[in-house]
Amino acid sequence: MSFDLAAVKALTFDIFGTVVDWRSALIEEGQTFGRTHGLEIDWAAFALAWRGGYGPAMERVRRGQLPWTLIDDLHRMILDRLLVEFNITGPGEAALAHFNKVWHRLRPWPDVLKPLQRLRRKYLLAPLSNGNMALLTNMAKSAGLPWDCILSAELAQCYKPDPQVYRAAAQMLGLEPGQVLMVAAHTNDLRGAAAAGLRTAFVPRPGEYGPQAEAEKPDPAFDLIAADFEDLARRLGA
Amino acid sequence: MSFDLAAVKALTFDIFGTVVDWRSALIEEGQTFGRTHGLEIDWAAFALAWRGGYGPAMERVRRGQLPWTLIDDLHRMILDRLLVEFNITGPGEAALAHFNKVWHRLRPWPDVLKPLQRLRRKYLLAPLSNGNMALLTNMAKSAGLPWDCILSAELAQCYKPDPQVYRAAAQMLGLEPGQVLMVAAHTNDLRGAAAAGLRTAFVPRPGEYGPQAEAEKPDPAFDLIAADFEDLARRLGA
Repeated sequence: MSFDLAAVKALTFDIFGTVVDWRSALIEEGQTFGRTHGLEIDWAAFALAWRGGYGPAMERVRRGQLPWTLIDDLHRMILDRLLVEFNITGPGEAALAHFNKVWHRLRPWPDVLKPLQRLRRKYLLAPLSNGNMALLTNMAKSAGLPWDCILSAELAQCYKPDPQVYRAAAQMLGLEPGQVLMVAAHTNDLRGAAAAGLRTAFVPRPGEYGPQAEAEKPDPAFDLIAADFEDLARRLGA
Repeated sequence: MSFDLAAVKALTFDIFGTVVDWRSALIEEGQTFGRTHGLEIDWAAFALAWRGGYGPAMERVRRGQLPWTLIDDLHRMILDRLLVEFNITGPGEAALAHFNKVWHRLRPWPDVLKPLQRLRRKYLLAPLSNGNMALLTNMAKSAGLPWDCILSAELAQCYKPDPQVYRAAAQMLGLEPGQVLMVAAHTNDLRGAAAAGLRTAFVPRPGEYGPQAEAEKPDPAFDLIAADFEDLARRLGA
């Protein structure tokens, strides 16, 4: 390892795609939603479109075209657009509000929970996600994610990969940036973390966008490249 | 009960004095610190003086005489003053920095942990303390407090009982103020919570300031008055 691992006191985790599998839950809940409301929709395409709206929506916040807006509200703006595009007219407000919160109910990839439980004995563990505090808190509770605290872009009021998000996270943990290791399946996230002085660990998620998609290629400059969460825990001695 | 308990989704807890017993830990760690550095100090008096400096220090922040300052730093300012008052000159910077973090290592009152574990199955649980995020996170980890997320005055950048702290907490949980029940042993805390629209539960802590001290008297306007955390859990059906 190319860095002083002994200095690391906390691990922060990207959530959507890295810790939880958004695609499978969106498809499953979409199918249930579709049966309830008599809809014939390609839910795999719907899931990709919903997730696909997320980056551009945050970009509008970053550029100041939107004021600070929580992910729950960005997800709802995208959903409202998709209702038109997919020609969905039946469901009422309560059903839509519930469906929009599918993002609070995502489930971890199968390799996540046990390594996290071991890592927690050695490190402070927290999500560091663009998801809002309520979303991350509800998700942790329903999925049993063993976080020591919840950290969100909401606390810095700007979105990853803005280095300020990572700096604020280290500060709230009472740590120097170099004492925090950011874990993600996305190179832009880890580059933002590195720009703020955090350590970086890459875990590939080839299934994130579907069985035919490919995982992002890690940047060799990342401090640690693991095969999965089991491998990550092993390399960190947990 | 005088309010719609079914509406309550989350419980937020005052920490110092309500969940944890600051006095006993300060005395015990003080005695160890004293033995290590050859000091003859009345640690019970020292503990009361350290805690006694806390309210006035936050008041200076509230009045704008100090910029926003974390509790860790306020605790250190008070400690530095007490070193002079108690004529302590031996300990070096590392020892003082460690001693100042005794506030991260406080332990819960004996009636706390089991009722919290039961309550957690039914409600979102979070601290809502003037303690900073790092302090509350480290304390939760060392004391095994089963929070779903950590909420702190640090997130609102103002101190309880400013109603903004309680409003920000409800908002971060994605809830209306009336869906959150604030639990505290201190009337001023619960009055601040009520002013923000939260529900209020009082738990007396007669031992907070020592064996001869008396618990605060609850305001009959509080929504719920419990004998201790066991009684609180029972009244909340957990």
